[in-house]
Amino acid sequence: MINIRFEKSPPIPPENYVRVRLKDLMGFVTKVFKTLGFSDEDSRIAADVLVTADLFGIHSHGVQRLKSYYYNLVKDGVIRVDYTERVVAEGPSYAIVDAGHGLGHPISYRAMMLAVGKAKRTGVAVVTVKNSTHFGIAGYYALKAAERGVIGFSMTNSIPFVAHTGAMGRALGTNPIAVSFPTRNPPPILIDMATSVVPMGKIQYAARVGKKIPEGWGLNKEGVLTTDPNEVINGGYLLPLGGLGEILGGHKGYGLALIVEIMTAGLTLSPFGKYVSRDSISHAFMAIDPRKFVPYEDFVKHVESLRNYLKNFRKHPSFKQIWVHGEKSYLTMKTRLELGIPIHKSVLRELKEISDELGIEFLFGGSENE
Amino acid sequence: MINIRFEKSPPIPPENYVRVRLKDLMGFVTKVFKTLGFSDEDSRIAADVLVTADLFGIHSHGVQRLKSYYYNLVKDGVIRVDYTERVVAEGPSYAIVDAGHGLGHPISYRAMMLAVGKAKRTGVAVVTVKNSTHFGIAGYYALKAAERGVIGFSMTNSIPFVAHTGAMGRALGTNPIAVSFPTRNPPPILIDMATSVVPMGKIQYAARVGKKIPEGWGLNKEGVLTTDPNEVINGGYLLPLGGLGEILGGHKGYGLALIVEIMTAGLTLSPFGKYVSRDSISHAFMAIDPRKFVPYEDFVKHVESLRNYLKNFRKHPSFKQIWVHGEKSYLTMKTRLELGIPIHKSVLRELKEISDELGIEFLFGGSENE
Repeated sequence: MINIRFEKSPPIPPENYVRVRLKDLMGFVTKVFKTLGFSDEDSRIAADVLVTADLFGIHSHGVQRLKSYYYNLVKDGVIRVDYTERVVAEGPSYAIVDAGHGLGHPISYRAMMLAVGKAKRTGVAVVTVKNSTHFGIAGYYALKAAERGVIGFSMTNSIPFVAHTGAMGRALGTNPIAVSFPTRNPPPILIDMATSVVPMGKIQYAARVGKKIPEGWGLNKEGVLTTDPNEVINGGYLLPLGGLGEILGGHKGYGLALIVEIMTAGLTLSPFGKYVSRDSISHAFMAIDPRKFVPYEDFVKHVESLRNYLKNFRKHPSFKQIWVHGEKSYLTMKTRLELGIPIHKSVLRELKEISDELGIEFLFGGSENE
Repeated sequence: MINIRFEKSPPIPPENYVRVRLKDLMGFVTKVFKTLGFSDEDSRIAADVLVTADLFGIHSHGVQRLKSYYYNLVKDGVIRVDYTERVVAEGPSYAIVDAGHGLGHPISYRAMMLAVGKAKRTGVAVVTVKNSTHFGIAGYYALKAAERGVIGFSMTNSIPFVAHTGAMGRALGTNPIAVSFPTRNPPPILIDMATSVVPMGKIQYAARVGKKIPEGWGLNKEGVLTTDPNEVINGGYLLPLGGLGEILGGHKGYGLALIVEIMTAGLTLSPFGKYVSRDSISHAFMAIDPRKFVPYEDFVKHVESLRNYLKNFRKHPSFKQIWVHGEKSYLTMKTRLELGIPIHKSVLRELKEISDELGIEFLFGGSENE
């Protein structure tokens, strides 16, 4: 039975992982943020974003970042505990939020909810956020809009890793875009994509497990395509979606990254490209209320017809099945709600270190599977 | 001097082309639409969209389509001359327009202007259009917003050519997205991209001139990568941006096409994928007024700083220069305003046929270059 349960990034080899219960992991991560000094609400949302990434099989953005990224940045004062979040401009369908270098996740969640509320009145709204910090998976915020029956767009700029078409160097971030559309039956449609071929996390993962990367993911520091992830990490560059040059559309991935950069840093007059630092990240959130355009029931039915059409299309012989965006994460979540979330033992050790330092109870027994 | 003037798709070999003056070409194309029965405004806008494509070096969407596509579809009654355009739902930041199977270009222009007007009041607006026909280059409408100091997004679904990830068949259109950002000095930033690796026009062009296509643009009807454009045309498929499978991000291009399909057909309850016909195309336009977010002068200055940053970045040794989106079209336009617009003699013959059939004066002498 376990074998047919789908997981997007299955724990392989299994002996390196412990499966922990959602409730235990959420409780622990929330407690960490609270002990660091964040409010109950902030701590719960930040934990939810990180744990959702693990539930969805996006380990690169999950609790493996808790110690190495968030915990350390809070301790170093880069992410401010005593931040002040302010709406600095606002109107019927827009707002700008100054995040005051606070915790990216709850600030982003509230920004998206601000957009959702405005969209429910006017039809559409955009809320931008400046002086923020890393907000985790972009898809989380888009999905929170879709859960409220509203189309959600979420994007962020980021520390640069990508060489744009014709350039050599780390010029632009992987600048992800996420979009979620509500459906009648779960899961909502969820597109969540770096505008580079792959995010940096995939390169780092390959390096950690000693694997080569496919040609086309990145360049070494001389600008040559490489299959060695360490060459990308040590001074190399990621490629925009579409790859090197214009032949397969690399200028399109570059264009998408540029759209994100202007929608975030442009609309907030914030640092862009190599000037982005870990506490000057900008985001943009958009909400569109479909029920202003057409009856809601008809809309979600129509989106589901489209999903079924794509899902049941004639299959290519080289592929096992056709996926529609949002399905893989959803099935992974279902599996992990049942079996527990696989956490790599090295990550568990990091969580244990935090628990020791902060004096928080650490009780991950590892769930017993039926 | 002529040699250093930039053109995106230079007329090669030159003896196959005649350079015509913008004024002459605009006058002729406008007259064609008027003679077919469209209003002065409709005719002028449709002509402007087609001629702008030629000015920008996007010949696949220029006057070469006048006879084979628009003229014939109007004569066949697919594009209705006596259409009624209606706003069927409207609010502060949204509207739906029923195009009544009329001429896509002027209806789309007015839809974008409706979005611009609303955005200037509320900050952001989305206007969707249903029962429309092919609107030409998506970038035209985005650019019209930018010319008014407003960020413009433009997208459309289309007749299917693209096999989505894992599928074999023509499931989705090339579903282009265009975005334009105003700048202080011309040109505005303009990203205009099919969400497939290439639009069908590039395949057709390769077939016409007897050239192979790069591997990665399309599949033959058995689902195998092919370098023969005729295999793609005759029952084959285009690939989404990112290519075949997920390794280089083909699921991302597929996701972008899906976003466009839902934003257009979804938000208007219109046909999607293979159900889209030439008179049931849907579009979506969005306008965002940057001056609601930040002072306008600061915004355009910031966008220009970003452009300069990208433009002056360290160059990759394999590339001649770094381009920023919108520059190539702009320089091509400058060249052609001076030298004339190169029209292939086979296209000129088609224009002559129309002039004979409609009894319109045909005076393309071909401009004399200095």
